[in-house]
Amino acid sequence: MQTVYAQMGISLDGFIAGPGDGPGNPLGTGGERIHEWVFDLAAWRRRQGLEGGRTGADNDRVVRILERNGAVVMGRRMFDNGKEPWGPNPPYRCPAFVVTHSGHEPLVREGGTTFHFATGGLQDALERARSAAGNKDVEISGGADLVQQCLLEGLLDELEIHIAPVLLGGGIRLFDRPELAGVRLERTEVAASADVTHVVFGVTAGDPS
Amino acid sequence: MQTVYAQMGISLDGFIAGPGDGPGNPLGTGGERIHEWVFDLAAWRRRQGLEGGRTGADNDRVVRILERNGAVVMGRRMFDNGKEPWGPNPPYRCPAFVVTHSGHEPLVREGGTTFHFATGGLQDALERARSAAGNKDVEISGGADLVQQCLLEGLLDELEIHIAPVLLGGGIRLFDRPELAGVRLERTEVAASADVTHVVFGVTAGDPS
Repeated sequence: MQTVYAQMGISLDGFIAGPGDGPGNPLGTGGERIHEWVFDLAAWRRRQGLEGGRTGADNDRVVRILERNGAVVMGRRMFDNGKEPWGPNPPYRCPAFVVTHSGHEPLVREGGTTFHFATGGLQDALERARSAAGNKDVEISGGADLVQQCLLEGLLDELEIHIAPVLLGGGIRLFDRPELAGVRLERTEVAASADVTHVVFGVTAGDPS
Repeated sequence: MQTVYAQMGISLDGFIAGPGDGPGNPLGTGGERIHEWVFDLAAWRRRQGLEGGRTGADNDRVVRILERNGAVVMGRRMFDNGKEPWGPNPPYRCPAFVVTHSGHEPLVREGGTTFHFATGGLQDALERARSAAGNKDVEISGGADLVQQCLLEGLLDELEIHIAPVLLGGGIRLFDRPELAGVRLERTEVAASADVTHVVFGVTAGDPS
């Protein structure tokens, strides 16, 4: 069954990016510390066109994430901040639907990533992504605003966070909306290495009473 | 060796209490959801004078926490909010040092808890607690302000968080200070049940470069 999920690296104090993120600097100041556990992994290096790297449980997890995606959905700010650093061969390798108010022709990149600009709202973008993904899953790639919106609208089946053992002190919080108190979660998996703690939640839709 | 540590229940969105905490309502609105994993445990019930309750890994963990404490240190706000709900027999069962600006004679309670009001600042309160604890450990009991102050001043050896699978949407954040970016942590333990995820960090003192 197709799953709509998000997986986000966060600092222990809850940030997905450090202060001062912007175009060309999607992680903000210090934000790369959240993702340090990823950079040396063989699967991640391979996707950047590099050889070597660490294998093991964290690597297996990243392999599974990369393989499960049939399409991704992202917010406009994430696209604007990322398009330069991603370069000509973005790491998605599948159709990517950007939720935006301003339309644009699809941008075909190397490696299988094509950015589609969906102006019909989140639910429309998600429907298009589900259809494009076929039997594979759809990742809500970010940013925090979009993930929270999906949680609040009952569109997310699963949320995985990768907690890095770092404190950033500021930046973009993954969770910062009062309405989130109505969302119900069920913890379904925990895994950890020395570098990161992975926690997976099922999102319980329905009446938040 | 004596360890100075903190162990705090937090929501997935980072709150240790819900909105509107105050005297007689130390957990704020919805804050009891953070601690639901504790209330039914045999060790916790026993400390409230109740029989029965769940045993197992979470219970063993709470037993170890309750047994390791030789003294606790807390902030004035935590004392003011808690003194009514704690009743005549507070759950500490050891000397408790309240960091405060206004002095007061010690308050002797049933069960081994005596509140001492330490007006010489955090470090002085901690020194008195370390001495009172003998061979046992000292818990920085809270609130969030005091725990963060201890992190920033290099006074904490260990920090354990119990992540509840709930979103509160607001309240008191455990981590909300920019200066925390200078604190270095090492993840030392992870344990989990369906109800809660325990993550333990060693605090690395020294140069935050």
